[in-house]
Amino acid sequence: MDELIEYIEKSLPLSEEMKRDLVKISKVKHLEKGEIVLSEKSHRKIQVFVVSGCLRSFYKSEKGKEHTLQFAIKNWWISDYITLFSNANSIMCIESLSYSKVILFEEKELDKIYKQYPTLAMVQRVGLQNRIAALQKRILGLLTLSAKEKYQRFLDEYEFFEKVIPNYQIASFLGITPESLSRVRKEIALS
Amino acid sequence: MDELIEYIEKSLPLSEEMKRDLVKISKVKHLEKGEIVLSEKSHRKIQVFVVSGCLRSFYKSEKGKEHTLQFAIKNWWISDYITLFSNANSIMCIESLSYSKVILFEEKELDKIYKQYPTLAMVQRVGLQNRIAALQKRILGLLTLSAKEKYQRFLDEYEFFEKVIPNYQIASFLGITPESLSRVRKEIALS
Repeated sequence: MDELIEYIEKSLPLSEEMKRDLVKISKVKHLEKGEIVLSEKSHRKIQVFVVSGCLRSFYKSEKGKEHTLQFAIKNWWISDYITLFSNANSIMCIESLSYSKVILFEEKELDKIYKQYPTLAMVQRVGLQNRIAALQKRILGLLTLSAKEKYQRFLDEYEFFEKVIPNYQIASFLGITPESLSRVRKEIALS
Repeated sequence: MDELIEYIEKSLPLSEEMKRDLVKISKVKHLEKGEIVLSEKSHRKIQVFVVSGCLRSFYKSEKGKEHTLQFAIKNWWISDYITLFSNANSIMCIESLSYSKVILFEEKELDKIYKQYPTLAMVQRVGLQNRIAALQKRILGLLTLSAKEKYQRFLDEYEFFEKVIPNYQIASFLGITPESLSRVRKEIALS
């Protein structure tokens, strides 16, 4: 839990009381490679803070094809944001791609903490705003970038985890076919 | 300005003081078709609430191609969310696609109001969360839907404005070519 406290304290010094209340609602978990943290159709509303390792959220189509929405590495949050703030059951799965250490929070408990500590809510607000900027950037990338540019941006962000993440997941995250991904990799290797 | 107050009051009853402070920082504008509210490379940080009409935000690539990130109709907010919360200049343009009535806010002023009235900040937080859900849904749509499904989802959301929005803008919003859009429309007309 120290890792999260340290991370939050980059933006906001926490009182002992705040730290205690945060620890009280958190659950540290060690995940094996392939372990599922959230299943689709679950009624659970959780947010996951990644301490180490790599997780991904994905959507499985009716035909069984997996579409990767997000990867998350150290100091990132991951959740099924489409249903997190609603009453609907989850539509995404979250799985661990490596041995990972995470901190789990129930959304309901986090919400209470934000109401109790408005300064913490402010930090969360900045987090939400940053997420919006990142998501818009991702949409713009999907609309405007070539397969090669998408892959290069992916490398910039997730460099260390390229070896951990299977090719078909990278391709599905970029919205390109695995064949395009191979082609782009060859192009980059030759350039 | 009454329209925004009415809209906010669906979530939160506003005191006379809150209303007065909101009005003080707002600027009602009537826009002509084609009028630009925010230009690219602007240092302005504004959020636009749409009272009536239709606006869009778009990014112009180096080659001059326009990529539509968002349309906004009655009761929606629109802004360049990629740069709004940062120090960077805007990278998007926002233009009016019809005769529109909007309410403009400087982000700095809104921020002050949220600090002054924590209950209003709560309403904004829910707004941010809904935006995150909508953006994730859009990404999932871009990754998983066929051209036909994308267009049908667009019709569900923006039905009344289909006539106002030029074809190339709809296509660029959906991430498909104008030719695909024509094909899909014919398919739907024939089915």
